[in-house]
Order: sequence, then C-alpha cells, then structure tokens
Amino acid sequence: MKTDVVILAAGQGSRMKSSQPKVMHRLAGKPMLQHVVDHANAMVPEVLHVVIGHGGEQVEQAMAGQGISFVWQHEQLGTGHAVAQALPQIGQDSVVLVLYGDVPLTRTETLKQLVQIASQGDLGLLTVTLEDPTGYGRIIRNAVGDVVAIVEHKDATEQEKLTREVNTGILAVPSSALHEWLPRLSADNAQGEYYLTDVIAMAAEEGMRVRAIQPEAEQEVQGVNNRQQLAHLERWYQRQKADALMTAGVTLADPARVDIRGNLQVAQDVLIDINTIFEGDVILGEGVEVGANCIIRNARIGAGTRIEANSIIEGAVVAENAQIGPFARLRPGTEMAAGSKVGNFVETKKAVIGEGSKVNHLTYIGDAEIGREVNVGAGTITCNYDGVNKSLTRIGDGAFIGSNSSLVAPVEIGAGATVGAGSTVTKTVAADQLAVARGKQINLDNWKRPQKKGS
Amino acid sequence: MKTDVVILAAGQGSRMKSSQPKVMHRLAGKPMLQHVVDHANAMVPEVLHVVIGHGGEQVEQAMAGQGISFVWQHEQLGTGHAVAQALPQIGQDSVVLVLYGDVPLTRTETLKQLVQIASQGDLGLLTVTLEDPTGYGRIIRNAVGDVVAIVEHKDATEQEKLTREVNTGILAVPSSALHEWLPRLSADNAQGEYYLTDVIAMAAEEGMRVRAIQPEAEQEVQGVNNRQQLAHLERWYQRQKADALMTAGVTLADPARVDIRGNLQVAQDVLIDINTIFEGDVILGEGVEVGANCIIRNARIGAGTRIEANSIIEGAVVAENAQIGPFARLRPGTEMAAGSKVGNFVETKKAVIGEGSKVNHLTYIGDAEIGREVNVGAGTITCNYDGVNKSLTRIGDGAFIGSNSSLVAPVEIGAGATVGAGSTVTKTVAADQLAVARGKQINLDNWKRPQKKGS
Amino acid sequence: MKTDVVILAAGQGSRMKSSQPKVMHRLAGKPMLQHVVDHANAMVPEVLHVVIGHGGEQVEQAMAGQGISFVWQHEQLGTGHAVAQALPQIGQDSVVLVLYGDVPLTRTETLKQLVQIASQGDLGLLTVTLEDPTGYGRIIRNAVGDVVAIVEHKDATEQEKLTREVNTGILAVPSSALHEWLPRLSADNAQGEYYLTDVIAMAAEEGMRVRAIQPEAEQEVQGVNNRQQLAHLERWYQRQKADALMTAGVTLADPARVDIRGNLQVAQDVLIDINTIFEGDVILGEGVEVGANCIIRNARIGAGTRIEANSIIEGAVVAENAQIGPFARLRPGTEMAAGSKVGNFVETKKAVIGEGSKVNHLTYIGDAEIGREVNVGAGTITCNYDGVNKSLTRIGDGAFIGSNSSLVAPVEIGAGATVGAGSTVTKTVAADQLAVARGKQINLDNWKRPQKKGS
Repeated sequence: MKTDVVILAAGQGSRMKSSQPKVMHRLAGKPMLQHVVDHANAMVPEVLHVVIGHGGEQVEQAMAGQGISFVWQHEQLGTGHAVAQALPQIGQDSVVLVLYGDVPLTRTETLKQLVQIASQGDLGLLTVTLEDPTGYGRIIRNAVGDVVAIVEHKDATEQEKLTREVNTGILAVPSSALHEWLPRLSADNAQGEYYLTDVIAMAAEEGMRVRAIQPEAEQEVQGVNNRQQLAHLERWYQRQKADALMTAGVTLADPARVDIRGNLQVAQDVLIDINTIFEGDVILGEGVEVGANCIIRNARIGAGTRIEANSIIEGAVVAENAQIGPFARLRPGTEMAAGSKVGNFVETKKAVIGEGSKVNHLTYIGDAEIGREVNVGAGTITCNYDGVNKSLTRIGDGAFIGSNSSLVAPVEIGAGATVGAGSTVTKTVAADQLAVARGKQINLDNWKRPQKKGS
Repeated sequence: MKTDVVILAAGQGSRMKSSQPKVMHRLAGKPMLQHVVDHANAMVPEVLHVVIGHGGEQVEQAMAGQGISFVWQHEQLGTGHAVAQALPQIGQDSVVLVLYGDVPLTRTETLKQLVQIASQGDLGLLTVTLEDPTGYGRIIRNAVGDVVAIVEHKDATEQEKLTREVNTGILAVPSSALHEWLPRLSADNAQGEYYLTDVIAMAAEEGMRVRAIQPEAEQEVQGVNNRQQLAHLERWYQRQKADALMTAGVTLADPARVDIRGNLQVAQDVLIDINTIFEGDVILGEGVEVGANCIIRNARIGAGTRIEANSIIEGAVVAENAQIGPFARLRPGTEMAAGSKVGNFVETKKAVIGEGSKVNHLTYIGDAEIGREVNVGAGTITCNYDGVNKSLTRIGDGAFIGSNSSLVAPVEIGAGATVGAGSTVTKTVAADQLAVARGKQINLDNWKRPQKKGS
Repeated sequence: MKTDVVILAAGQGSRMKSSQPKVMHRLAGKPMLQHVVDHANAMVPEVLHVVIGHGGEQVEQAMAGQGISFVWQHEQLGTGHAVAQALPQIGQDSVVLVLYGDVPLTRTETLKQLVQIASQGDLGLLTVTLEDPTGYGRIIRNAVGDVVAIVEHKDATEQEKLTREVNTGILAVPSSALHEWLPRLSADNAQGEYYLTDVIAMAAEEGMRVRAIQPEAEQEVQGVNNRQQLAHLERWYQRQKADALMTAGVTLADPARVDIRGNLQVAQDVLIDINTIFEGDVILGEGVEVGANCIIRNARIGAGTRIEANSIIEGAVVAENAQIGPFARLRPGTEMAAGSKVGNFVETKKAVIGEGSKVNHLTYIGDAEIGREVNVGAGTITCNYDGVNKSLTRIGDGAFIGSNSSLVAPVEIGAGATVGAGSTVTKTVAADQLAVARGKQINLDNWKRPQKKGS
C-alpha cells in the first residue's frame, strides 16, 4: 500500500525565543524537521508532505531539493486543520502517517509498525506510558486491548486519571477514512481548534479498530517547545550514540562527553578521549586514537593514526599511521599520506603531504604538494596568496625546508633540495640544490639598548 | 524601616584545608562572601556589617571599598556572640538580618521576605524541608503555623524527629529585641558557645510571633564546609544559569558543560557549544555562535559574529559579523570591526582591526592600528617591544602584508601599500608603495647535506 | 603465612569487540590487569600467578619485568580449571587468593581481609549485596552468619531469591585445601566447565568455616565484559579520585570533569578548572592553578605557578611562580625556572628557561639553554635540526631576541646581546653585541598589485 507522510511543521514555537521557525532548530547538528524527514524517508513514502506556516519560507528554503511537497497552513487552526491542508493531494488508496516536526526522534522502526497497522485497515496510534501523565490525554482501551477513546485530562474520571498511558498524536490511518472524517471535525471547543485526535472517537464509532503501539523509549515521542527540551533530547540522543559506539568496540573515556553530529563510522579498537566532537561524515579506521577536545568534521582517518589533543580536522583524508597534533588544524583539501606528521600550531589547507613527511611546528601549508620524506622546519609559511590569486607550492621528495622560511608561490623546491633557515624563496630551487635567501649577519659591538621613554 | 545586615564570616573552615579564610573561596568566580554581600546589597541595607575573625585581614582587604563595616570577633564563641559584636553599632529602630558568609546562594527575594516579616515586628525565620533531616534542629510549629521552638536533634522526641523542616540559622528580627535578648544568651551547653538560635525560644516566650518562610530551592540555604560542598553548589549554580540562558533563547549544546562566572548578557538565538566559560562581564549579540572550549572574559561580541572552537577572548570589543578562531587569542584592547577576521594561532593585544580586514594565521598583532580591508599574511609579527618600550604599528586601508613579515614598530604602512613576504620593515612605507626587505636568493648546486654525527 | 595470588586473565572478552585481550584494556590509563596486579602486589605476595590464554602473548609482553609467574590455560574450561593450572607451582603451606583480571578495582584493604581469614584456616569469600541480584549466585548463611552454600539463580527457591547477597568469585583459601579440592571438581554441568565456586560446598561439607566479607563499594567487585562497563568503572574511579583531591584541599571547578590517569600529588589550595587531564606522575605545588582543558603528563609544577587554559605539558619541571599558556606546549626536557614565562602558541622541548625569562608568543624553543631575564620575541625559532643532527642554542642572561628571528644551532648568543628582529643568526653573537642579519628595506613607488587571473 502507498504511504503518504504528513509532517506538521507550521507552529511558531514562541517559547524558543527565536527568529527561526521552531522545527529549524538543530539537534545533533541538523534541524529537528530534518530528523523527522529522514526517519520518514527511510520508509520510502509515496509523498512526503510538510505543512508549513510560521516562518514557512525559511523552512521551504532550508529543506529544498529533497522532493518534499510543501503545503501552506495560513491560519493555525489545529492539528486536524493542518492535516486537512495536505489531504487534497492524497488519494483514497493510501495510508497517511501523521508526524510532527518538533518531535524529532521517533525511530523508523516505530513508524513502520504504525503504517503496517493502517495498511491492514486499522488505525495505528502511538501511545506512551509516562511516570506522570498529568495534563495528557489518557488512552482508554477495551477488553481486547484496542483503544476506544482518548479522554482529555480535564474530562477524565478519577479512575481514568490513574491510567498512565497517554496519546502522542502520532498515528497512521487509511486515507479514505481521513477523507471522510476530517471534514466532520469540529472546532467547538475551548481553543476553537480542529483536533486530529478526534478521529480516534470517529474510528471507534464506526467500528474501525484502533491499535496502539509504544516506542522503545519515551524520548522518541517527546516534543520540543523550549530550549530546555531541545537540550534534553540532544543529550539523550548523544547518549544513545555513545552507547552504540561502545557496542561497536570503541572505548570512550567518558560517554557523557562525546558529541556526534552526523554519521560517525568506526572500526574496532578506536579510542576516543573526553570532550570530542564529530560532525558530518567521519570515518575512523581500526585503532585510531582521538585525543581530548578534538573536533573532526567530514574526514576519513586511516587505521592506526593518532590525533593528539586539541586538534581540529575538517574535510581531510588521512592515511594510516599518521600523527596529528596536538593543536593541529587541518582544513579542507588536506591529504596526509601514511606515516606523515602534522604537529603543533600547524595549519594546512589544500595540502598534500607525502608519505613519511613531517610538518611539525608553527607552520602554514596552503595550496601545496609535498612529496615523501620531506622535513618542513618550524615557522615555515607557504605564501600562497598575493592579495588576489592563490598559487601552488611544490616540494619534491626528500627536500628539507629550513625553519622560518617563506616559500613564495608559485614556486617549486626540487627533490632532495635544501632551503636554508630564514630564507624567502621566490624562484625555483632545482633538485639537490641549496637555496639561501637571507641577509648577511653583522655583529655590532657595545650596542646600547633603547632607553625607557620618559625616564 | 531601616535594615542592618550582619554577615557572619569569622569561621576557620578547617575542612577546606586552605590558607585562605573559608568565605574567600570562590564560587562562580567570586568569593562566597561576595555573593552574600551582593544579595544583601540588593536590598539597600542601612549598614552591612561583616563579622570577621580567622583570616580577617585577608577578608577586609579583599572586600575593601564596598562600604562594609567590618567587626572583629576575636574569639569564636558562637553565632550569638558573633552577632553581639556588631550590635553596638546598630540602633533600636532597625531590622537586623543575620546571614552567613559560607551560605552563598540565598536569593535577595528570600531575604526581602524575612525583612518584611521583621519590619512588622515579628521574627522572620528561614527554614527548609530536607529529605533527611538527621542532625538538624527541628522546627516545631503551633496550630496557626507559627514556630514555637527549635528542638535539637539529640533532644527531639521520636514524634519530633519525624519533622523534616529544619532551621537554617538565617533570620531577621527587630533590633530592639536583639538588644534585649543577646545579653541574656547563655553558653551553658556542651560546646560552651552562645547560640543565636536561642532567640527563637525567647521570642516565643515573650509572645513575639516567629513566622517561618522557605527558600525556593534547598541550595539557597546550603552552607559550605568542605570543597565537595563548594563543588556541589558551584554545579547547582551553573545549572541555574544554564537554565536561565535557555529560557532567554540561547541554545546550549550541553547545559551541564557551560560555566558562567560573572554576568553574561545574551540576545536571542545565541548558540553556545560544549565546554565554554564566560567570565566577568560578557555581552553576546543576536545570533552569536560560540564554539566548543572557548573562554570569553570581559568582552562584547556583536550580532552575527562567529567564534570558532578553542578561542580565548579577553577584554575585547568585537563588532557584528566578525569571525574569530579557531585557536585565536584576543587579549585586552583588541577591537575588531564589522566583518573582520582573526584566524588560527593568532594573538592580538591593543589592536584595532578595521572593517573587513583579515589576520588569518600564525600572527602576533600587538599595539597596532589596522585599517579597512587589510590582509595580514601568515606568520606576520608586529615587533612592538624593543626590550624597554612598546611602540605602535599603523597599517593603512587596503594594505597587503606579505607572509612572515616583521613590522618593527614604530612603523607605518601606508594605505594600499604592499609588504613583500619575509620582509623586515623598519621604515615607513608610503601609500601604494611596495616594500621588500629580504636577502637575495642564491641557489648552490650539488650541496652536500650534513652527515650524521658520530657516523 | 605465605600468600600466592592467582589472577585469572585468560578470557577472550568477545563483547569488547577488540583485537586486544580483555584484561589489557585500559582504565584510568593502565590495563585492567595492571590495576589487579598493583592491588595484589601491595600485599607483598610470595608469588603472583597470572593465568593467561586468549592473547596470552600480548599479556606476557605487556606485563613483562614485573616478576609475574605466567601460567598458560590452553583450553578455557572454567575458573576451577584456570586455578588448577597454577596450583602445581603452589605449595601446601600457603594462602591462595583468587582474583580476576577483568575485575580491576578491588582495594588492597579488601584483599587483606580475605587473606587474613584464610591464614586462620578458614575460607574467605567476597560477597556483595546488589539492588537487583537477578542471575547471580545467592549466598546462603547459617545461624552464626557463616556461608553454607551458594545457590545459583536458576536453582534458587523463591525464598532464596529474596537474598540480595551474591557471590563475587573472589576468595582466599589455604592452599592445602585447594590441592585436595580442585582435582575433585566436576565439569558435569550445562557449560561443561569446572567452577571454582564449587569449593564453597566442599568447604561447608568438610566443616571448614566460610566467612564472607563485603567491599566498601559495589564497584570494587564489578567485572568488565563490554566497553559500557569499562566506561562505568572509569567514571566511578575518576569520581573517587576527584573526591580525594577535594578532601586534600583542591578546588575542582567540576568534579565530573577531571581525569586522573596515574598519580597526582597535590599541595593545598590547588585550583583545577574544568576538563583537565593528568597522566603519569604529576606533582602540583601549593596554590598552583591549572586552567581549563589542560593536559599535564609526568611533570612537576612549583608552588604558585599558573597554567592557563588549553596548555599541554609533558615531561617538564617547572619552578615556582612561573606562568604558562594559554595554548602553550611544553615537551619533555623542558625546565622552567622561577618566575619564567612561556606564552601562547609556544612549543618547548629540551629547553632550559632561566629565572624571569619570557618566551611569550608563537615560538619554538628546542634544544636550548636560555639564561635569566632573557626576552625571546614573538615568532622566534631555534633551528635545532639540520635534517640529520640536533644542535644546541645557548642564550646568555639578559639577552634580547628580536621577533621573527631564526637562531641556527649550534649557536651562542652572549649575555646582554641583542638580535634584531627578523634576523637569521648563524654565528656566535658575543656579549652585549647587536646582531642583525636581514635584507635592506627597499620601497618601490606605484607598485601595481597582481591582477586577478582569468579576469
């Protein structure tokens, strides 16, 4: 059976105190709505409808290019009204799954169960059992366990209030039923809104079975109305990620101090020290060690490579048994070959560093290709920018670049060449040549130091 | 009615294992006693008396210039004795509020309620209900809810021990009553001390109503006797601060990993990543992003500015849409104009950086004024110190400073001027000039590398 | 009485998902097995037997040189079988204490109690009372409190299941009894293994008293079967360490954010900010302040020294009242004298820095001896490596090294000498001389900037 997913994402979220629409706030590095969309897409729905309203243009723009059908809800008249905006685009032979852009962590497995129920002609309802259900609509079941009603807290009898199973609002239902029911919803209530929840009573009335399932964890159905709730879900999400890493054979120095904002793929025996952050797509090979306070973003790190503390790596590809940091900063386009080394206070960008080469201290390597077994001395700068253009520096295998050198690109240092310390190299150095470009040393006797001014 | 606040701050705090007086230990960056003084001052008391003893000179010195009346308690003979030392300076027509220098977090709102009670002629007592009241003096109330006695744990009946409401020692009372009562306190007890608590019985005896109020949170009345308790209150305080930030519209990546040691003012949609520290007075404009592990101290950051991870900012003023870090260090006197950029491994001090200018890598800018749209190359050093004097470097709009340059101050680089890479500039460069100050490059063929010594 | 310790360390630990033997996984920086060995060695046993199997070669190699007697268990046939492998090396007149390489945190005090019981001819058994004992063998005691049986969960009556005291497997027993009992163990059970636990029944049968003791904390007897359990014990261990530091008079900004991996000795009034790591042997003098995110490894820091945030110190000796960081990196062989200073983006290695000397910014000092009151300017590099040999730089008292200088070792700068900014010094500078080694500045008018390529 076809599935149409309708995600409600029109709310304002005034308690977020934000100029952004609520569903655009990020959890683990991506908008909450994107989490919902990703979970829904994993089910390969026919159409994914997102109902937008407050800040709708921002939502449309941020989520463009994903094949989403955006539906405007110009007035916020309730969840039933929101779904009704999408309904004209949905046929009679589909299952409609209703999700919420501010309930980001419902797992695909849970959604599949709901859709499965609805594709059998029943109504699938997601409920949750809370420690303290105060304020929530209670689930009333019949003798065989089917849901027969949702009683709002204020309308519940004392007996009904003892029920800790409550409605989450997430449901799946045959579209034919929705086409029949939504026009019959009434806004004759305190808020003057059309509630989607009222379809449960309609189903019960018409003899459609309402079968409830529950999520694995309460957090799957928690919504976000303020930044505290966002932070709570962020932390829960991160603990789940940390747990999965440990199960996969990663040692975490502190599972409460690692943040995964994207997809982290790991081989076994990876060690991750405290306070690390992984963003985007990161792959860590077997035995990789990541030191404290490192940030790694969109990078691939080869087996046995050791990244020392306080390093930041972005858009880099690092081969096996390399050494990085501490205090290294690899920017996009960095490629480190096997056994190469980038040390402290070194920045690299669009830089290829050959096998066994070392860039150990206080250096900037930008727009450069460095061969094998090259030693780049402390304080070396590739002068890759003349104010308008970026140019390339090429250093051949086995070259030795003396400390505090400036290599003015475009420039080429041949294989086996040597650059004397403190040189500013502007012209090609051929293979095995020694280049020196610095002033002659003059020593003056009895030089008098400057005097303290005003003294 | 006038209010006299008496803060007891004479205790030794031997369990702190410290050469500092206990009340001088810092919580959230300021001495515990300062917290108490600040909360008390918010009520605008007539006189703020601080009773000192152990390490009293250190306390006097640290708290000087705040208009505090210090009173010495030369022997530590109990809380009643401590208050009695201040009493001679207090008239008959005042309300006396008694606080403790090692109970740092009682809120001003709570204190105001106590003073309000006392200004009506009653005794205002702060009590708290504990999960486990073992060891504390139990509050005994009469039928109308007034306190009639405090029964010490060891003297309590089994029935009284069930009471979980206990005395905190914090109280407010008309000064006339104290003048009458304190001379009547007796040290005829196991410790041989004069207990302030005994005035409760005196009040009850004389028919003065004792009205108890409770704090919003237990931590408001928790005292600090060791570093574990200090750490506990520190963490609780930080969680409160984090919560207030989130309510104000700040996204915190982890509310358990942010430290506020001073006053942090935020606009909405500020993002604060993990493990950040704010000290002193910090103002963050709308949409500011603060990366992981940043430390910001006494700084103002304009709207839209992005501070990348591992940056340290102190005493700086940064305009809107600037970019800082990662690994940047802004020291006092740094002013960054709109859209300017300070990058990795860059230190600035007394440096004005003009609109759109960039100081991207491995640079020291000290005592310098940089115009608009200037590009400062990697490895540039302003040589601002000759061993005795600091001098100024001025760089005009649109200048380009080649990498690895040394600008020997005092020196001026004119607007639109260019400094060649690797130059040591000691003399003025006029507008639009190119300055080069480096050795000529000489390439020697077939140079023989040094040999391994001893081989 | 002699004590033989037998540590079982042959298990595979497949749930660790690791190529390392389970007992080699590190907790607080050292292998779990090393913790057990250290606790056992503190009792000065006659012989310390370690039974190895899976990955046994790795274990032997990692633990070599500690006087351990390794015993191979080629087939893993149960705990009784494992102990039996060591038994031939143990006489009749000893006490045998059985420990587990994956139960790392049993305290020596607890072990001593067990051995004490066994040396009196009884069997000493370590038990623990769990909140939820499901699945564990229950301890059945007689009227006088001695253990008479251990009933496995599946065999326990409903009454027995109420018992929350369970077996830990850790025990001490006279060797003579083991010699008699182990050959009688049977593998006639579901797993087909020889269980050491069965000796309890044998003891009871033969009238030997089985006296149970309990650890101070449950974590003392927790085993590690997966990385989650390893992380749990790591965090518990770290909290214990943090607590001990606070008791000793250290202020911790956050007791949940400090990691001690080795031996940290502290004097009083040390302040340790968030997210710090101490590894190996570290000694901090009175009043030392350690800023956020610092990592200190095998170092001694003198009283009053202040280490600012984001610094990494390894193998260094720092005298009193020095200042380090932020963003400093001291590598092995660094010695800082009293009142000296190493600032941001500075790396030192085998460097002696004299009293009051300053190396404040963006500098590499390697293989160098710096006298007193020397000022090393920003961007200075000691060029200590010519590609094959490392050489020494010597700087005399009171010298001034201008910024962006390169000191090409071996080289000597005399006392009181000055090196001009931007110089590359290759020859000795005598005392009080001024050395300048840089190109002459040439200013060219109306220089035309490069054009944007392709435009």
